[in-house]
Parts: sequence; C-alpha cells; structure tokens
Amino acid sequence: MNRFPRVLVIGAGAIGSFYGAILKRAGCEVAVVLRSDYEAVNANGFRFTSSLGDLSWRPDQVYGPNDTPVQTADYILLCVKVLPGVDRAALVRPWMGEHTGLVLIENGLDIERELADAFPTNPLVSCLAFIAVSRTGPGEVNHQAYGQLVMGNFPRGFDEHCARLSELFQQGGIKVDETDAVVGERWRKCVWNTPFNPLSVLANGADTLSMLDAPGGESLIRTLMEEVIAVAEADGYPMPDGIIDKNLEGTRKMGAYKNSMALDYLQGRAIELDAILGNVVAIARQHQVPVPHLQTILVALRMRQA
Amino acid sequence: MNRFPRVLVIGAGAIGSFYGAILKRAGCEVAVVLRSDYEAVNANGFRFTSSLGDLSWRPDQVYGPNDTPVQTADYILLCVKVLPGVDRAALVRPWMGEHTGLVLIENGLDIERELADAFPTNPLVSCLAFIAVSRTGPGEVNHQAYGQLVMGNFPRGFDEHCARLSELFQQGGIKVDETDAVVGERWRKCVWNTPFNPLSVLANGADTLSMLDAPGGESLIRTLMEEVIAVAEADGYPMPDGIIDKNLEGTRKMGAYKNSMALDYLQGRAIELDAILGNVVAIARQHQVPVPHLQTILVALRMRQA
Repeated sequence: MNRFPRVLVIGAGAIGSFYGAILKRAGCEVAVVLRSDYEAVNANGFRFTSSLGDLSWRPDQVYGPNDTPVQTADYILLCVKVLPGVDRAALVRPWMGEHTGLVLIENGLDIERELADAFPTNPLVSCLAFIAVSRTGPGEVNHQAYGQLVMGNFPRGFDEHCARLSELFQQGGIKVDETDAVVGERWRKCVWNTPFNPLSVLANGADTLSMLDAPGGESLIRTLMEEVIAVAEADGYPMPDGIIDKNLEGTRKMGAYKNSMALDYLQGRAIELDAILGNVVAIARQHQVPVPHLQTILVALRMRQA
Repeated sequence: MNRFPRVLVIGAGAIGSFYGAILKRAGCEVAVVLRSDYEAVNANGFRFTSSLGDLSWRPDQVYGPNDTPVQTADYILLCVKVLPGVDRAALVRPWMGEHTGLVLIENGLDIERELADAFPTNPLVSCLAFIAVSRTGPGEVNHQAYGQLVMGNFPRGFDEHCARLSELFQQGGIKVDETDAVVGERWRKCVWNTPFNPLSVLANGADTLSMLDAPGGESLIRTLMEEVIAVAEADGYPMPDGIIDKNLEGTRKMGAYKNSMALDYLQGRAIELDAILGNVVAIARQHQVPVPHLQTILVALRMRQA
C-alpha cells in the first residue's frame, strides 16, 4: 500500500472529526458516517476553531448510517462513545473489508475485546486521546487544547499498521506516544479517570478542586486510586511508584475544572460508566481484588440510572 | 406537679405541630415558637387532615423567635432538624427554666449529646418518631399515617418524666414504646435509615424499590446495613439476628416509596446528613470499625454540598 490510505470515520463527533482532520491534513482520503450532523457536514464540511491553525475540512465522502460504502476503507476510525445499548460491532460491520484495520479512539478500559472478538482477523489498533475538544453546533467543533494519542495494538504489540498511522498522525500535526502495552496505558489513565469522573457525577458535576477540598475528599480519591492500582497490578499492569501523588499534584496545578464525564452529565448526555468504572470493578471481581469504594460509586450511579 | 404540664414546642413544623396536637388533646397547655408560619398560626391555629380525627388546634400561646416566655414551660419539645449551622442549644436556651425537661423528637444518632452538655441538670427525654406527616402550607399539616414514639432518657433509663410524657401521649391517642436503651433504638432505626436515606439522595431521589432492584443494589444496601450493625455493636448495642432480612422484607412489602431524605432533597430542603450518616462514620472511627461503603457515600454527598 504505497498510496495514502483511505480512512472512514464512524462517529464523527468532536473527537472523530478532529482526528479525521489530522489524517486529511496528512494527505489521506477521509470519509465520514454521520447521523444527526449529516446535512450540515454534507453542505459545509466541518468548521473548526483550533490553536493548531485552520482545521476546517470537507470529507471526501459523507455517508448516512444506512448508506453502503462506495469503496472499502483501509482504516476505520471508531470514535463513538462506549455505552450499553450501542453495539459497536454492528455499527462497524457493514463498513468493514477483509483487510480493513479498525482503529479505536475511545476512552476506558477493556473496550477493545468485543471488537477483537467480532473481527478476529482484522488489524486492531487501540488509541487513547488526550484532548480537549467539543462540538459547538452541527458540523462545528472547538478544539481547545492538546490532541496527543497513545497508540498500540490490542492487547499488546506495535505492528506496521500502528507505525503507519502513527507517522500519518504526526505528519498531520499531533504527538503520538507509541506503546506495545496499550492496556497498561489505559490502566494508567484510569488511575485518574476512574475515581474522578464517576465521583464528579455523583457530586452533581462538581469540579476537581471542590471534590479534593470537600471534607474527606482527597482521602477518598486517594483510596479510590489505590483500588484502581491494585486491580491494574492483579491484571498484570503494575503502575509506577508515586503515580497518585503525581496525579494529584497535576490536578491541583491545573486548577478547578470539570472533567468530560461531569460535562456529559451536566449537559444531559449519557456517561461512559462501564468503560470507565464498571469494567474496572468487573476485572477486580475476576481477580478477587476488593474494591469497596469503587463498588459503592458504581452501584449508586446505577441506582440513579434505574 | 398535679396540674397538666405546660409544654412549649420549638420547631413547630409538621412533626412538632403533630405532637403538640396530641399533648393538647391530652389536656396540656401547649405553646409554640414559630418563625415563618407565625402569622398564619397566630390567626388560625394549625389545620390538620389526619386519620386520627380532627387534630386541628390553636396553641395557648404563639411566640416569635425573639419573644420572651410569659411562663416557663415544664417541657420543651424540640423538633427542629439536626443540621450543621443550627445551634440547637442556643435555640432552646432562652426558653429553658431551671427544671424544664427537654424532649427531643428528632431523627438520627448521637444527636442528644450537645444538649445534654448544654443543660446538664435538666431532664432529657429522647424520642424517635415513626410517622408520615408533612406541612402542606403555612399552619397546614397533612398527617398521612403512624405516629408512634419510641421514648427513653438519654443515654439510658426511663425516669418519671418519661413515664408522665408517655402517659400523656398515649392519652392523646398515639402509641409509645418505652425503652431504657433509647440509643439502641436509634441504632436500630439507623440500620435502615443510614443506608437508604443518603443513598437515595446520591441516586437523585430514587425510590426504595428502584434502589434495591438496580444492578448490585440490594447487595450494596445489605453491605451498608452490615457496616451500621458492626458500628452499633462496637458502640455497645448489638442488633438482633436477622434484622437485615426483616428490614428488606418490610421494605419490599411496603412497595416503592421515597424516604424523607429523598423528599427533602427533591424539594430543595437541607438533608440531615450528619445525624443520619456522619455521626455513624465518626463513631466507627472512634471504635476503629472499617466502614468503606458508608464513608464513600458520606464523602460523595459532602462533595456535592461543597
């Protein structure tokens, strides 16, 4: 494959349209599948505001969810939220070719398995995005900061597909951290996300500093992080020493802010409870690691959803 | 004291005006101290709807919070909510005589101590109310069901004041459970309240059955009850065998309903977090009983308040 790869973005919201823009800028042919923003994007493309310069772009092809692909993609970027009731394998299946590589740019832990099981012979690249980006209207996106990807194969390794994509993303202007243990990197991100995100929803969308400074707050957050670290270790991914102190120092330095799950909650959107917390508790149970504090938060949020 | 006692109700909301009505019906002279409902009650008394018959009554005296008492009361019924920032001793002090007995009709655990410390030589009667009653407007009260009191001295015993009050309440038409271990009875009520009430607030006002039937819900509630029972036992009040099963059977039999703290939350009123949960966690710490699940709920709610 010497030509630039053909890419299809499924779930071209804020995240998907951002990374689509980057690959477009790198020279790829980039198509998108859209539902609610189909009309706007078909007419005007994506309009960006970004510190990286003008990222506005027009997809080479705009599909609706029931269309059939004109050409098979070399890579599919899957950027939908991981929610119960969203069958991601079914979403992807009509668009997959025999050799299409599936690239997940999604949050959370143990979110690759159902796709690895559904497409066992296709390449599978797992990415974590460190980015602040939000949809401000139909086809309109505000990229506030960052954009770095952590990338590797699921469950481990770093093959030629990773290498190719990494190069393209970097050519498009973002940093890529290459890893052959992407699951470990997901655990590392969970050390922060798994405590802070769901707890901020229980606290009705509280910001990071309000949470830390509430009576008993920092202590509870440390305990939750310790539980995540114990599960990660039992799962084969020991976390580096001092990770809790570093996380908390960074959080305090950044100042009060509302994390993405808090914002989803406050704006009435579904939260990725299983990807961020439920799967951690399930893995804890497999390894018989006690996680009473995480478990309490998970069940309280499930009661709220019930 | 052969005449009927003179009673003053402080905090004559739904609970206070109900028990005031009962004592009035028993023949007592009953005065009230009111803030927001002063005008309405001064003009029309309390208007009740109740299955116990017409409980509407006119206090012998209606005071505002800054008035001075015309006569010293034999008993003060204190029925305000137990909230941080509400100094109950200061609220009571201007109305207390040398021999005035203080009767608490309030929810929660370890709520007597600050009053026992403030008035060490006055009789102190501690009551738990099992009642469904709510204020429907200024001076207007709907008594839905129940009314039974559990009564004893704090921290233990059942003296002549208890005996006298118990007789009067029964003459007024309600059941009284007399106990010489009222703190144990408070613990017993906490086995239900301490898990269900704060958790219902975290679950955004969920009803009992939604909470029990959420994935992991009944299991979490059982675990929370076990933690309360462990603290009660360490505090010298072992709970009876089978209390958890009995509580849950009763809850399921009653059908879905929203507990009082859930209603307070949904109606924007302050919740008695310390009386119901904070004090239990504090006592757990004194006795070094681990309560990770209770602690998580407490801190999450404090984060929400912060």
